[in-house]
Formats: sequence, structure tokens, C-alpha cells
Amino acid sequence: MATPSGFRAAATAAGIKKKADALDLALIVSDAPVTSAAGLFTTNRVAAAPVVLSRRNLSESRGRARAIVVNSGNANACTGRDGLRAAQETTRAAAKLLGFLPREVLVASTGVIGVPLKPDPILRQLPVLKQSLSAESAGAVANAIMTTDTFAKSCVLRGQVRGRPVHLAGVAKGSGMIHPRMATMLCFITTDAEVAPEILHKLLRSAVEVSFNRITVDGDTSTNDTILVLASGMSGAKIQAGSRSGTMFQAGLTALCQTLAKMIARDGEGAKKLVTIEVSRARSAADADRIARTIANSPLVKTAIAGSDPNWGRIICAAGYSGAAFDPARVDIFVNDFVMVRRGLDAGFDESAASREMDKKELTIRLDLHQGKASAYIWTCDLTHDYISINASYRT
Amino acid sequence: MATPSGFRAAATAAGIKKKADALDLALIVSDAPVTSAAGLFTTNRVAAAPVVLSRRNLSESRGRARAIVVNSGNANACTGRDGLRAAQETTRAAAKLLGFLPREVLVASTGVIGVPLKPDPILRQLPVLKQSLSAESAGAVANAIMTTDTFAKSCVLRGQVRGRPVHLAGVAKGSGMIHPRMATMLCFITTDAEVAPEILHKLLRSAVEVSFNRITVDGDTSTNDTILVLASGMSGAKIQAGSRSGTMFQAGLTALCQTLAKMIARDGEGAKKLVTIEVSRARSAADADRIARTIANSPLVKTAIAGSDPNWGRIICAAGYSGAAFDPARVDIFVNDFVMVRRGLDAGFDESAASREMDKKELTIRLDLHQGKASAYIWTCDLTHDYISINASYRT
Repeated sequence: MATPSGFRAAATAAGIKKKADALDLALIVSDAPVTSAAGLFTTNRVAAAPVVLSRRNLSESRGRARAIVVNSGNANACTGRDGLRAAQETTRAAAKLLGFLPREVLVASTGVIGVPLKPDPILRQLPVLKQSLSAESAGAVANAIMTTDTFAKSCVLRGQVRGRPVHLAGVAKGSGMIHPRMATMLCFITTDAEVAPEILHKLLRSAVEVSFNRITVDGDTSTNDTILVLASGMSGAKIQAGSRSGTMFQAGLTALCQTLAKMIARDGEGAKKLVTIEVSRARSAADADRIARTIANSPLVKTAIAGSDPNWGRIICAAGYSGAAFDPARVDIFVNDFVMVRRGLDAGFDESAASREMDKKELTIRLDLHQGKASAYIWTCDLTHDYISINASYRT
Repeated sequence: MATPSGFRAAATAAGIKKKADALDLALIVSDAPVTSAAGLFTTNRVAAAPVVLSRRNLSESRGRARAIVVNSGNANACTGRDGLRAAQETTRAAAKLLGFLPREVLVASTGVIGVPLKPDPILRQLPVLKQSLSAESAGAVANAIMTTDTFAKSCVLRGQVRGRPVHLAGVAKGSGMIHPRMATMLCFITTDAEVAPEILHKLLRSAVEVSFNRITVDGDTSTNDTILVLASGMSGAKIQAGSRSGTMFQAGLTALCQTLAKMIARDGEGAKKLVTIEVSRARSAADADRIARTIANSPLVKTAIAGSDPNWGRIICAAGYSGAAFDPARVDIFVNDFVMVRRGLDAGFDESAASREMDKKELTIRLDLHQGKASAYIWTCDLTHDYISINASYRT
């Protein structure tokens, strides 16, 4: 599939991951001299060095960037001044090599926390990466940013704005430490649309609100969450806020983000199922959101889903301690279209039929509160033995 | 060990649990005509029928009660009007049988949610229970309230107030759905001290704040949490607020509650370890509490503890997303007395020695924030494969 014009990428094995030949370093470059950039970052007070530096660079360049250097295998978090220095040396070396300003280079890292990141293996590989830059390397980038991910996550969308073809491409990673606002993840998006930085930032924020901010795996918000979008403008399609072009671009960006976000939820550590929690007819949007998130984060609900056990008591119980206002005696609960609870009471359903619904690889748990008009949804996954296996010995 | 004067108890197998000969119904009776009572209940909006009824009875009797009827195997939650009726029939039948007023009988239930509780098996067994009441049956009561608990939880303390011996005895259950404010648990305490109801309530609230409200297993707050205390006054030792007797009784009640609370955390579903999270030198008590609770609830921290992996990055990461204000560059982190992190950076420690510390059955993770003077602690457990096994098929 065609990728956005103006972008090239490359990936290599720099030896940051333990496995010597594993891809762990990638470079994304824009060939357009004026490339808009926007970013959203973790809300964790313990922000990794690359988050600190990329945030600063985006601010100093007023939303202009030409390159992204990303590594996996080491989060460069809780690494103090040396960590920040390693990130800075990386941006400086890449800038010099590519003929950009250091502030036009953004960095991101994912992997283990608290282990010093040595810059040398990265600096040594930058010329190699530059040599192998190509328009067809998005797949390799998606692979190079994986940690406990079981599959590479990428997506390309093609649309038309004012008669011109516009492309949106994204790669993402994320599997554990996934929690809304925002999920523990990296995501890099490129587009050949022409979008001013401040508009790009606004559109990104809206798209993330209904995609990456709606997934949760384990309720842990990481130190490294980063989502970056670069717009080369090479398609000549100009996106303006409040216009039809803005609406169309927003729809595409949102679809791209939602696709990648659902891939992350589906690939939750140890997960076998993609679960949508939908709450409708709540008194307020905040209440609907609170209930959906609380259910999506309940270990008891998630283990019941893993066991295909239609144990709706845990679902209404989680709603009950969410802090939202509702009358339990009015609640209906469904799994897919199958009713389990009517007006707060067991609907007298066929347990094995319900269990078959819960056995599906994708399922929706829906609560109709019969209280008001607000609704919310969130994507999550089941909690299985493999989550424990993966995380009890992540570093060993 | 001697139990509080004035109390007798009994337990039996009523057939509520699937296993036919499993103890699942218990009765606690006070022989003192004027017995003070106090209770604290779940904050879950979906409160079980016995919670609704016991709360109402305590209020109508102005803190007087003579008996507690408790069943396991069925939570009588989300059971609508029939559920409330079943609880009321139980209190009425017990009251008639024992010669008390219905409002002097309290009820509690634990087990599966949303399954109708048939009152008949309970009503049939009440005369049997009355026949077998004895002062030595606390152990049987502790057994009869177990669900996924792996051991019965009871504790007896003996003290002296104004030259008179005072006894405090407690039984508790709880293993899953355990979360602060308050934990998913039942706890029944008896004492032969003489305490006015309003003072008893106040002392109980203080004791629970530093015991049951400081444990967490999975962050799920149940529909049935109930803690009841009955004071027979039979020791003749009068407890008064603001006096030395009050201070001494409070200390005993707190010690009893903390012992039982730690038993619950240690018996967390699938848990192998009792873990204390201590946060010191925080800017405020709320910040310290927030950080301790967030670490205690992090699935990534809990799986690392299960694997004895000194992965302190997950600990500081959880602190970072707790919402509390602190400077990550000042934090020290210890496991027991072993330092892992100094001023936000890896202390360069011996991983296998740290892993040995984490391998202990009881361990303390301590964060020194170097920010202020406030501190907090919370008890939790590790997250293991067995949590998943127990909960993926709880009902099947």
C-alpha cells in the first residue's frame, strides 16, 4: 500500500535488546523541508528522558520536526542526567548526519526502566540507518519498537481532500503498562497532508481522546508514553480547521488511531480477547466513563472474561464502586446481544449460551443504566495466566 | 484461650455451598440483655440485602443487637426484593426463636452475587444452631464464613481495664474483592467490655481506618463488606471516651483489627506473600496514602513481587502516576533494609541479593520521598497464577 509522500524510514539491530539480532532502533525522516509536528506524552510524573527532550524540542521548534529516532529494549527512564545526555547526544548526532537542527529531531524509548542507556550503540548505527532509509520500511519500524508485543502494529489509510490523495500511516507498540490518559505506548504517525502545527496538535488531541485514551490493559500508566505525528505537506492537500478538509482529516486520523489503539488492547499482555465495555443512558458522560473504566480495570471482571464465565455480579459490583451515581435496580447488562441482567436482576438466562458468547475473540459488555442520555466506551482485554508469566520475570 | 463473657456461637452446614457438608451458616448470640452494637459497611453503591437490612436495624435499635446470622456461599446481592425478604425472614425467625426483637438481629452474607438466596435452608437450620450454641465455637464460625479463603481467620486478645479482665475476639473472612474503604470482607468482633453504642462506633471507625482500610488484594470493593462489633458488658469494665479506659480499649481493638486485616492480605487469592508498602517523608498524608495505595494496586508491581524480581522501575512508575506530588530525583527505594534506589537512580545493587529479599514470605517495600514529614502504609500481596485460576472459574 502506498505510504505518505515525503517520508522514509529504516530499522536495525543495535544490540540494545538482549537478543543480538533483534530490531531495536529505528529512524523516521521527512524529506520535506517544512514538516509540521505534534506530540502527546505521558502524564506520569516520572517522565523518561526522551519524553522530556521531545516535549522540549517540539516547543522550541514551534511544532516543526524532521526526524524521529526510537529505540526499544531500554526505556531511558529514571536514568538521571546521564539519561538526558544520552537522548541529547542522539538528537545531535542524527541532526548533524541528516543536516537538520537538533530540535528538529524527536526521540522515544521503550523497554526496561532504570537501566542506563548507553548512547554509543545508537550513535554507531545512525549512519547505517541513514544508508538504508526507504519509503517501504514502515513494517520494519513497527517491528523495531516491539517489546512484549506479540504482533507488529501498523495501519495505512488513504483518502482524498479537495481532489488530492492524502495518506495517513501509523505504527504503534504497546502491550503491558497500558492505561488511559494515555496508554503505555509509542505511536508514530506520518501524513502527506499539509497541516499547520497548531491545527495538527488540536486534531491529534481529539483523535487520541477517543482512541488511545480509551484503552486499558492493566491500569499502569508508563513513564514513556509518546505519540508523534509528522505532516510533510507533500500531497499538496491543505487541511484547515473548521472546514470540510479539517473534518475529513480528523475522521481519518481518528480511524487510524482507533485501529492502532484496538490492536494494542487486543495484544494486551497475555490477552486472548478484545473486549469493549459500553455504558449507555448514564446520568452524565463522566459517570458513563467512570463506570466503563472501572469495569475495564477490574481484575475480577477480566479473569471472568478469561474463563468465559458470565459472572455479571462482578460487573455490576465494579459499576457500584466506580463512584458514579446510578440505581442498580434499573441496570440491564448484555454480553454482545445476549441479555444477562434485566433491571438489576438475573434475567434467567442460559449459562452455557452466555458462556459461548464470552468465548468469542471479540466481545462487548454493555450496560444500559436507564438513568439519562450519556454514554461511553472503553477497550480492554482479558486477564490470563500469561499476563502473570510475562510480568513475573520480565527482566530475567 | 478464654473468649469474651456473654457470647455463644454455633456453625452448621445448611447446603448453601455446593459442597454438601461444608460449613456455611453461623449464629453468634449475646446472652446480655443490653448489648451494644456498631457496624461499618461497604461503600459500594450496589449494597447487598443483608447490608441494607443490618444498617437499618442498627439505626432503628440505636446500636443495640443480640445476634448475628451469617451465611457463606451466596452473597444475597443483586437479588432485588426477594433478597431483602429472605434477609428479613431470617432476622424474624431468629428473633422469634431466641426471644429478641427482629431489629436486634443482624445478618451478613458472602459468596456469589446475583443468585437468589432461598431462606428455607437457613430457617430450617436456625433451631439446630440454637441447640448447639457454645462459648467455644468461634473456630467453627471462622470456618463457616470462608469462601476462597485458604485458612480460617480468628484472633483473641485479653487485657485489663480498671482491674477487670477484658476480652476481645474476632473472626474474619476475605481473600478476593479486597480493596480499601473497606476491604471485601466480613468481620465479627465480640467483647465483654461495657461500651455505649456511640462510643463503640467511634472506636470501631478509628480501628478500621488503620487496619481493614489499609489492605488491598485486587482493587475490587465488594457489595457485602460488613464489620460488626458486639459488646456484652459482662466483664463489668466500663469503657469511656477520652479516658484511659478508652485509650486502652482502642489499642486492643486496633490490634485485633490489624491482626485480622493482615491475615486477609496474606490470604489474598493466590497470594504467597504479605507485602507492606511504606511511604515516608511525603509532602502530605494524602500524597503518602495515594502513593502507597497505587503501588499496592499495580498489577505490574505485584507480578514482579510474585517473581521476586527487584524491578524497582515499576514501583517508581506507579508512584509517578498516583497523582501525588513529588520529585522523582529525590526518591530512595528499599526492599526490607536493602537499598535499590538512591535519589531516583539505581543504587548499583546486587540483583540476586535483592531477589533473595523479595523471595521472603513477608516483605516491606519502602519509599523515602525526602519531600516532607507525612507517611502512610498499606498491606497487600503478590499477584500470582493462582489468582487467575481461582477467579477465571469461581462459579463453575
